[in-house]
Amino acid sequence: METNTINKKKQVISPEELLEHLKGHQRLTRRTIEAFPEDKLFNYSLGGMRTFADLIQEILGVTAPGIKEIATQKPAELQENFDHQNQKAELLAAWDKSTAEIEKYWKQIKPERFHETIKSFGQYEGKVWENIFYFIDNEIHHRGQGYVYLRSLGVEPPAFWDR
Amino acid sequence: METNTINKKKQVISPEELLEHLKGHQRLTRRTIEAFPEDKLFNYSLGGMRTFADLIQEILGVTAPGIKEIATQKPAELQENFDHQNQKAELLAAWDKSTAEIEKYWKQIKPERFHETIKSFGQYEGKVWENIFYFIDNEIHHRGQGYVYLRSLGVEPPAFWDR
Repeated sequence: METNTINKKKQVISPEELLEHLKGHQRLTRRTIEAFPEDKLFNYSLGGMRTFADLIQEILGVTAPGIKEIATQKPAELQENFDHQNQKAELLAAWDKSTAEIEKYWKQIKPERFHETIKSFGQYEGKVWENIFYFIDNEIHHRGQGYVYLRSLGVEPPAFWDR
Repeated sequence: METNTINKKKQVISPEELLEHLKGHQRLTRRTIEAFPEDKLFNYSLGGMRTFADLIQEILGVTAPGIKEIATQKPAELQENFDHQNQKAELLAAWDKSTAEIEKYWKQIKPERFHETIKSFGQYEGKVWENIFYFIDNEIHHRGQGYVYLRSLGVEPPAFWDR
């Protein structure tokens, strides 16, 4: 018991804390989706980039399926599209489902597996922690791009520090 | 010795690994600065936002000073401007100096301090790990915005996965 306490205190971040951190990002991204005028989610972008709905679909295709793959050790395929019918409500529903999947499968990942070497989606080799950090970084990166879309539409994005 | 080995293996990420992760982001941000046409660094933005040079100055003002403050426990002040003379070389030199400071002070942070509660810059209260993750997330967020500036200028940004 004493040993566990020391271990946890000496860690940079525990698996539970990293999940909470990721869930904070998921909440912020959800608010970013909500901030978009509905049509702009699906038909607006800058610099020839993808729409924010397309960026969100990439995140949906990567994070929850990637964490499920780590937890179950059953190969996942990259699947970045689903039939959202250009509806913000559909996108938000998919987002909530994805957040719930992340939480469900996260809890099945044993703490000692974070340094195991894996190949996500049959192609991205790295340690479990590296793959998970990549998923989180990818969400932050694309959400930041969504902030520029929003600003250029005259819409104030949600506060970055508020999770 | 045995205990240390087990601890390290059971951690999500070690302090050394988190530093390497951050340094990978610093390298990618450096390449993003390099990718900008020099004048656009200082006079171009979208949606009424700050120029990429200004976003970079924010990161310079936060990350290395924040880590130095954690390491030394001497209060730091937020200082987000320096005299770059609208020169890309000045910005890159400041960036390299900042990366070196991060590495220097990071190594002075004892592993057991990551769960200590602190107040960065006299105002941002949180655990050491939370503050450090905030610094990293902030860099990813603003660099992602720089990618949109670049794309809208017809410039291909560096590959996100390449650190």
